[in-house]
Order: sequence, then C-alpha cells, then structure tokens
Amino acid sequence: MNSILSSLQETQKAAAQIRRLSSDQKSALVLKLSAVLLENIPQIIAANQLDLAQMPADDPKKDRLSLNETRIIDIAESLAEIAQLTDPAGQILIERTLPNGLQQQKISVPMGVVGVIYESRPNVTIDVAALCLRSGNACVLKGGKEAHATNQCTVALIHKALAAFSISPAAVLLLPTDRKFVDELLTATRFVDLIIPRGSNSLIQYVRQHSLIPTIETGAGVCHTFVEQTANLQMAAEIVVNARVSRPSVCNSLDCLLVDKAVAADFLPLITPGMKQWNVEIYADETSFEILKNAGYENLKQAQAEDFGKEWLDYKLSIKIVNGLEDALEHVQMYSSRHSEAIITEDEAIAERFLAEVDAAAVYHNASTRFTDGGVFGLGAEIGISTQKLHARGPFALEKLVTEKWILRGNGQVRW
Amino acid sequence: MNSILSSLQETQKAAAQIRRLSSDQKSALVLKLSAVLLENIPQIIAANQLDLAQMPADDPKKDRLSLNETRIIDIAESLAEIAQLTDPAGQILIERTLPNGLQQQKISVPMGVVGVIYESRPNVTIDVAALCLRSGNACVLKGGKEAHATNQCTVALIHKALAAFSISPAAVLLLPTDRKFVDELLTATRFVDLIIPRGSNSLIQYVRQHSLIPTIETGAGVCHTFVEQTANLQMAAEIVVNARVSRPSVCNSLDCLLVDKAVAADFLPLITPGMKQWNVEIYADETSFEILKNAGYENLKQAQAEDFGKEWLDYKLSIKIVNGLEDALEHVQMYSSRHSEAIITEDEAIAERFLAEVDAAAVYHNASTRFTDGGVFGLGAEIGISTQKLHARGPFALEKLVTEKWILRGNGQVRW
Repeated sequence: MNSILSSLQETQKAAAQIRRLSSDQKSALVLKLSAVLLENIPQIIAANQLDLAQMPADDPKKDRLSLNETRIIDIAESLAEIAQLTDPAGQILIERTLPNGLQQQKISVPMGVVGVIYESRPNVTIDVAALCLRSGNACVLKGGKEAHATNQCTVALIHKALAAFSISPAAVLLLPTDRKFVDELLTATRFVDLIIPRGSNSLIQYVRQHSLIPTIETGAGVCHTFVEQTANLQMAAEIVVNARVSRPSVCNSLDCLLVDKAVAADFLPLITPGMKQWNVEIYADETSFEILKNAGYENLKQAQAEDFGKEWLDYKLSIKIVNGLEDALEHVQMYSSRHSEAIITEDEAIAERFLAEVDAAAVYHNASTRFTDGGVFGLGAEIGISTQKLHARGPFALEKLVTEKWILRGNGQVRW
Repeated sequence: MNSILSSLQETQKAAAQIRRLSSDQKSALVLKLSAVLLENIPQIIAANQLDLAQMPADDPKKDRLSLNETRIIDIAESLAEIAQLTDPAGQILIERTLPNGLQQQKISVPMGVVGVIYESRPNVTIDVAALCLRSGNACVLKGGKEAHATNQCTVALIHKALAAFSISPAAVLLLPTDRKFVDELLTATRFVDLIIPRGSNSLIQYVRQHSLIPTIETGAGVCHTFVEQTANLQMAAEIVVNARVSRPSVCNSLDCLLVDKAVAADFLPLITPGMKQWNVEIYADETSFEILKNAGYENLKQAQAEDFGKEWLDYKLSIKIVNGLEDALEHVQMYSSRHSEAIITEDEAIAERFLAEVDAAAVYHNASTRFTDGGVFGLGAEIGISTQKLHARGPFALEKLVTEKWILRGNGQVRW
C-alpha cells in the first residue's frame, strides 16, 4: 500500500453512516461487538500468541501485550458497560428564536473521524473502537507493530459486528504498521477530525510536531507532591510511598517530592522503610542527601539539574527541599507537566492556595496523585488523560468525543 | 530584542495575578479600560494617523485600519458590555464525593496565557485584551505591522488600566512586528496555553503548520448554498444575492451556488439583476453558463476545476448545476471548509436531511449564510469563528476562554 488517503476517505463516508444510527442502534452495535468477542476467544488468543512469539521472553512489555480468556471476558464486559453509557451526541445545548425570527439550535454531534495512535496494549483497539461507535464516530487506529496480529484479529471481529448493522468496515480502519502512514494520517486534514496520541512521550512529541489536525495530547506526567510543614507526617509518608511505588510505570505516579525544610529532617526518615522495600533510587538535593544518608538510605544519588522535571516511569524519585509554599509553587510551575500535583498539609488556607494556584489538570490535597484516572473519576472507560487545555483536560471519556453544530431554520432571512 | 521567551514568562506570571482577581474586580478592570480609552481619544487618533500615513492612499485596508472618535467611542462602549458578561471562570461543573471519600470538583478556570495573531484591524487589540481580562486570562498579541503605532498606543493605555489594579503590564504583551517572534511564540509550549490565529488563510495555514501549542483555527469560509427543486425561487434569489454581495470580503459570504438542474433554467435568470447590480463575476459550469448567457449576463466565465472550493472574498461566485440532494451533499462534502452551508427548499424532509448530513459549524435552511457571527448568534463579542471541532465550533466568545480543572480534597487516600 502506498497511500492511505483513499481508505481515509472511505472512513469519512462510513462516519456518515454511523452518524445516522439512533442511540439505541449504537448501543446495540457495541453489545453485538461484545458478543462477537466472546464467541471468538480461541481465535483472539491464537492471534495474540503469534504476537507474543515475536517478543523476547524477558521483554517487560510482554505482560501488557498478553491476552487470555479472563482478560477477553473483562474487555467484553467493559463493552457492555460502554453500551449503557449516555449517548453524548444529539443533545440540544441551546434552543431559541433570534430577534430576526431564525430558529437557532446548538446541538452536540459526533466528531466524525477520530484517529488514535497508540502502542502495544491490544485492549486499546477494542476500547477505542467501542467508545467511538457508541458516540457515533468512525475511527482510524494505528497500533504498535508488536500487537499487529492481535489487532488484525480484533478489528476483523469488529467488522463482523459492523456488518450486522450494514455499516461499512471502513468505520473502524486499522492502519498498517509502517511509520510512513502515521505521517500521512497526521496531515489528512480533509478526512480526519481529531488525533489522540496515547503512549510514550516521544510519540506525543512526534504527533505534536507533525500533526496538522487538532490533537488532544495525553499522557506525559511529571507529578510533584509537596509536604508542607504542618503536614501530618505519617499520612504524608504513606501517600508519598504509595504515589511512587504502587504502579511506577503510569503517568499519575510521583516523580518529584518537595519537602518543606522545616520538617525535612523529621519527615524523610519516615519514607525510607517504604522506599527501601521497593529499592527506589533516590535523586536527592544537597540537604535531603545528607538527611537520607544519615538515616542509612543506600540507593541514593546526588540530584543533578536534569533530574528535576523528569518523568521516571520507574522506581526512581527526585527530592528537593523547599522553603515554604512560595518556593514549592515556583518549582511546580517550572517543572510540572500540568498533569497531577499534590500538597500534604493540615493548614486549610495553604491547601486552598495550592489548589488554586497550581496550573494542572488535577490538584490534590492530602491524597495520592495516583487517583487521576477516568474510571476512578467516575467517567467510565477513559480515552486518555489530557495535559493540554482545549476541549478536554485531565481524564476524559465518551462525553468528549462530540463537537457542536449550529442549526438555523428560517423563512427567507437575509442580512444587509 | 532577540528572544521573547523571558517576556512570555513574565506574562505567565501575570496570568497568575489576574487569575486571583474576583469576578467583580475583573469587570471593574474592563470598565476602567473603557474609561481610559475615552480619556485618551486624541492620543489614539494621533497614533493611528502615524500608521495611516505609512499606507498608500488607495490601499483598500485603509478603512479597516482607520480610527476616529466615533469608532473609539464604539469600542469603549463594547468594553462596557464585555464587563457585564457573566464570568465563565469559577463555575462548578461537577461536585461529588467519590466512594473512597475524596471530595471531587470539576471547575472552570481561565486558560492562562492566550496568544492571538491577527492582521490590521486595531480594534481587535482592545477587544481581545478585554475578553481575556474579563475571563481571567493574560494575553500575547501579535498584530499587523500596518497598525503597530496604534497598537502600541492602545496597549500602553491598557497597561495604565492594569496599573490601577496593581497588575503587571506583562498581562497584555504586544509583540514586536518582526515575523521571527511569531515562530518563537508558536513553539513556547511552556508559557502559552492557546493560540488563536485571526486573518487570512495563509496566516491560518502558517499557524497550523508551525504551532506546537493547541490552536483554534478561525476564519476560512468556503460556503455553499443549494437551491433545491422545490425552493421558493424568489426567496432563494434574494438569499443568494444577499449572501454573495452584502459584504463580499467576509468569511460567511457565499462562494459557490449549487442549483438543482430541474429548476436551473427558471431560477438563474432571477439572480441576474442582483448580480448585475454589483457586477459579480460568475464562474459557471457548462449548463449554467448557457442559461446565464442566454439570459444576457455578461460578466461570465467558464468555471475551471479550481474555481470550486475557492473562498472568493470578492464579488465573484462559482455556480454548479447538481442532480438533486445527493449530488449536492457530495459536492459540499468535497469542497466545504465546514464553516457555513445553506439549503433553500420547501421540502421539510429534504431540509432536515441537509441539516443533519452536512458537516459544518453552521447549517441553514431558507436563510443567508451571512448570519454566522458571534453577535448575531447571541454570544456577545466574538473571538473568532472556529472551523475545527475541538473546544469551540463556529462563532465563539468569552465563554470559550476557560478550561477545566479537577480538584480533589482528601484525608490520606492512597491507591494500591
């Protein structure tokens, strides 16, 4: 294949077919997809085995790529939940008659064609397709090459469900894995309405630089937690350890701990048992280095300038001692990726200042940043976590897969 | 000046100052600006004369650039209206307690720093600054070099109003006119939250290609009107002439007329008097060329392929004869810029199909596309007309200068 443009045009035509389905039909389509998956579990597992066989045995991505019967049943059940969600399209947002007699409506309508670029997790293919179909959108999927056999299998099953509703298979288009098609996708302004990159920071940067299509950036999280001097230090230690070690590879985990110098000597020894248990490598500034060394912490390095503002995605943590709220706010402003930021304090006024002043998608008082998640936030299956400010911020889900449309009905109105 | 980055950083700091103002303070600030303008009319006119003196006497942009006492009073009055608009920031959008006890809020907050790139109209400088300040945002303005003396004068007056509220002048930053600063602005992802280009198609394309910052594209309008065979032809003729000639240089004016072949011979002669009056140059397809020639229309050319999908911004019009609704929909889908599209018909079912199927920001039945405008749509002073689908679509105003923020208040919640 040399160009995907004609395929994208077919997907745009298919988007018009889906847009015409009623809300009940779209639900039924997602339920049908759930049923088709359950009927074809052995086939999916067989395709997944082909992908797994290509991967070195010790590859840490192996677990994320792997599908078994339980996981497929989980996915099918999540589709049944998506089918029950309120259709975000077709809502009347404004309805009024203008002074000139024009009847004006603003309604929510599907985006049209949604492009999603992601990496190895094969469940994303099914989740994204289901969310797009539920909300009346077609989609273009560019998955990782490690999962391509699995993706081909699941997309073929999606096409089976689409056929049962006489919808063109182009409504869910899986792109070949060749990177050149990403560039073609990102410049197909005529056929694609929205691009969502999900994955590594380098993928997101690539999309940011090359996309001519409006994009919702997701993912990169450089998250801080500030332990203020009035904090309940025991609570603070539990939160900090949890935020760092509970799932180190995710975007809402803690990257940099800020500690008020007034409590640094008391507080830091409280986190050493937890950090030691997970062998967290700590990149400490001068003062915290001394305190941790004296407390007998071994996996310790002197932080360099570049160790701040880093998303570790691993059992690593940078620590900086700050001089009160202002100093902490300044550090966060400088280094945050605007994802999730927390303060631990017993002083309500200081907490409220932090919550108001920190510019991030999610801000926390006395809790772990690990809660930034569509499911936890009560939104249902998440499409991504937006770190930019247009259209969607923080975890976003089905409700953000629509745009607006103005409809005006007249009887001959002109404007001179 | 070699770099604007340190200025942009100051603007980001000033954004934090404005964000802290109460809604009443922000209103008072805009009212103060209105008063300062009225107190300095001679100074503004003198600066404007410097700009006008640089422009050739016959330059068609001269009128758009020119400010006189009446126009300045109009601008000051529009600011008084902006001061009265509801503050879009600080609204509580979601408030609930999650099962784990976290108190969750989603609130609307200012965007932060809004960058606007525009061309010669000097009122834009004041309008944009007022809309940004009303909603709690700082802004970076890059105006056209033709208006730079005027812009420097009005921004100095804006700084005077800011000073009265102890806000840093960096809150409204006017960039030097050198093009290289546009490139620096478009890549300053650390300091600027949103870019809005307002102006020519080439400006918008440039921003689309070079911006790493989320952008709301505005403006380009390739608009169609389809005269269906059941149309009231007299009404259709009035609408079509109005949509083309009433203000030919604006984005919501008609570019391409589609006529059902069943009524082409009856309909086209009805528009010739109006088109003749304004000497509209018509680019007609084969069939319409014959009809118009026989009707004695003189300013007539045979349309070439590239005459469709063109935004004329002038007394020019392309015409195509189509074979019913499907054919019209296909043409619109192919050539529309998704701005404003109209159908003229007495058949309600056909009208509803057109309104539902055409993918555009504004769709019209039996009315002129010229109504697509923030003021007409009841939104107040318009920031632009978005032809993309994220965040804002069609005319958008103050209410779209906010984003969302999730706030979570806990008492030690962790997630394992």
